[in-house]
Amino acid sequence: MRENLGAPVDLDGAAAALDDADPLAHLRGRYHLDERVVYLDGNSLGPPATVVAARVASVVADEWGRRLIGSWADGWWDAPERVGELIAPLIGAAPGQVVVADSTSVDIFKLLVGGVRLRQGRHELVIDADTFPTDRYIADSVAELMGLTVGALPLDDLAGRVGAGTAVVLANHVDYRTGRLHDLAAITRTAHDAGALVLADLSHSVGALPVHLDADGVDLAVGCGYKFLGGGPGAPAFSYVRRDLQARFRTPLPGWGGHREPFAMAAGYQPVEGIGRLRSGTPDILSLLTLEAALSVWDGVLIDDVRAKSLSLTAFFVRCVDALIPADAARVVTPRGDSRGSQVSLACADAEQVISRLIDRGVIGDYRPPDLLRFGFAPLYTRHVDALAAARTLRSLL
Amino acid sequence: MRENLGAPVDLDGAAAALDDADPLAHLRGRYHLDERVVYLDGNSLGPPATVVAARVASVVADEWGRRLIGSWADGWWDAPERVGELIAPLIGAAPGQVVVADSTSVDIFKLLVGGVRLRQGRHELVIDADTFPTDRYIADSVAELMGLTVGALPLDDLAGRVGAGTAVVLANHVDYRTGRLHDLAAITRTAHDAGALVLADLSHSVGALPVHLDADGVDLAVGCGYKFLGGGPGAPAFSYVRRDLQARFRTPLPGWGGHREPFAMAAGYQPVEGIGRLRSGTPDILSLLTLEAALSVWDGVLIDDVRAKSLSLTAFFVRCVDALIPADAARVVTPRGDSRGSQVSLACADAEQVISRLIDRGVIGDYRPPDLLRFGFAPLYTRHVDALAAARTLRSLL
Repeated sequence: MRENLGAPVDLDGAAAALDDADPLAHLRGRYHLDERVVYLDGNSLGPPATVVAARVASVVADEWGRRLIGSWADGWWDAPERVGELIAPLIGAAPGQVVVADSTSVDIFKLLVGGVRLRQGRHELVIDADTFPTDRYIADSVAELMGLTVGALPLDDLAGRVGAGTAVVLANHVDYRTGRLHDLAAITRTAHDAGALVLADLSHSVGALPVHLDADGVDLAVGCGYKFLGGGPGAPAFSYVRRDLQARFRTPLPGWGGHREPFAMAAGYQPVEGIGRLRSGTPDILSLLTLEAALSVWDGVLIDDVRAKSLSLTAFFVRCVDALIPADAARVVTPRGDSRGSQVSLACADAEQVISRLIDRGVIGDYRPPDLLRFGFAPLYTRHVDALAAARTLRSLL
Repeated sequence: MRENLGAPVDLDGAAAALDDADPLAHLRGRYHLDERVVYLDGNSLGPPATVVAARVASVVADEWGRRLIGSWADGWWDAPERVGELIAPLIGAAPGQVVVADSTSVDIFKLLVGGVRLRQGRHELVIDADTFPTDRYIADSVAELMGLTVGALPLDDLAGRVGAGTAVVLANHVDYRTGRLHDLAAITRTAHDAGALVLADLSHSVGALPVHLDADGVDLAVGCGYKFLGGGPGAPAFSYVRRDLQARFRTPLPGWGGHREPFAMAAGYQPVEGIGRLRSGTPDILSLLTLEAALSVWDGVLIDDVRAKSLSLTAFFVRCVDALIPADAARVVTPRGDSRGSQVSLACADAEQVISRLIDRGVIGDYRPPDLLRFGFAPLYTRHVDALAAARTLRSLL
């Protein structure tokens, strides 16, 4: 079905009706957004919530400027765990299992090494062949340090491949290029059947769809603070370690921040009980409290509603693409069923140039090599009219 | 000499004269300071420079809020190296050798592992027995991962102890408890004579006194962003790798941020040329740009002037303590000659309680186990009258 240029009421009407019926529509007002721009890159960098600016100003002027070191005892020192508890409900984690510290790359390192130590005698890491590059680089580094091998394979082939030598399977929940959503429960079952642990990278799912770490029996997880969670550029990442693994979990980055008595300044490292042992150095307070402020938008928001809207937005965008874009100009590579995250990727010739021209016209997506246009649909502030506007602008360029 | 309570003009007059003659006195106006407080903990957490609040607000509203991902190409991506170049002159480093990323603990890990890899076949780390705890914890962790031993000894005993098996000597430039300043040039000569590398922890010297990394031939260094540099609570740390070691330096945390072509998203890690290979994950922009703003205070400030004032402040504080505090109530443990950083530590009974009561009276120092009162004298905003006021308040409590 191609849209009739003379009577473009069908898609406009559909977009308006979907937006009118959106139970999350009011959340858009909680973000600073330029109404001249269609921002479809919240899967890369979420925009600031309106509460963030005032909160950051208060942290600088009051907590840092006025109360100085007194603030360590008054909300700073426990920020990594406190902000972790705000993320926990979004990923199906009971309290005491999530901490915010360091970057995704550094956290993957901690979790992989700690995971391998929980599976002594096993000598292989298995990773998703289509993983975000950092996961692969870090896995290779861990393998070199610990004398392991790394097997990279499509997650679909996992069942035939993990075995008695596999220590940890590192899997992306959502493929950052295609947007495909993997079945974390099934991956975990397969890994557990072989006696291996699973480390899930939730960077492209957290905040966009429900994650059920506890229910699925996932062992370890990591996720990004600056995509759908909106913590700001380079916001700290979070780590999850299943409660029953925590007591034996040993980090390779035992900074003073994870010590049982950090201010005793003792010569020997004794990790604190619980998830706090994933902390390393001094917490980055400015970034942590910014992420905390960003997460306040989620108060009272049901992640199932977020998922429903995400599927509606992405399905509607695919419908617009089908209607507006010639099939030989761009091909939808994101699954059309429900096995997708909150993005739609289109394969297209000259994708890098197309994205550049789209951005010039106020539609912000991004390019991923070799040939993908990537459009993220962050459900808290994106509308169906945005999806339609993006498809129309894209049509004008192809 | 004890002060005559009836005629306390001597120390007051001396303090006023010293402050009147201070060529850096005008810099105090560049900080937000509560005039009812004597803040002597800038060696732990520097206060915010006045420029910081506006800069942070602009980063949130404009760079993040308005320009969004466009800012990556417009000052964000290269921030780690750019901010590193602002620190370089303070530590005697020619351009291209300093990068700001991650925490001190994480950076020590990177530098130790990378250093050991540059000294293949050597199996020992030597560390300062009085080191800040994180350095020791991380060294022990590196040793476990790489099959090394750790020797902890007083830096004075280094010459007899480093040998053909020593890969890296990890030395603190200033002892965080006593304030003693070590001779980095001599430590480096001793290590180099044995064929070992030196990793210097500058956390308690950078921004307080001149450091001469290039001239002293130091191989690797790390330092804290939130003490004398004033980058804010948990600000990112910096790493230095001597230029001629960089090409062979291999980090154990090869995140996508240190890749030669980060946006190519290639499967294999290829480190970028130069110091950027010490980067790991996505840079924490909010914290990096806050540190950058804080460093703008240093424009045109000569580190030799800073050192002269630091020595004057600490010497004057010791003079006040000598004059006002009974010798059996508190003992100066910081070297009285010039071999000290920018702090004065006093050993005293019930030190933890004494610090708590001092803070109640508006004099902010800190406690370090087992018995130390620690007072930092950050030369950019501390006055001699502050040193006198602190000594007087302390006398009233002892």
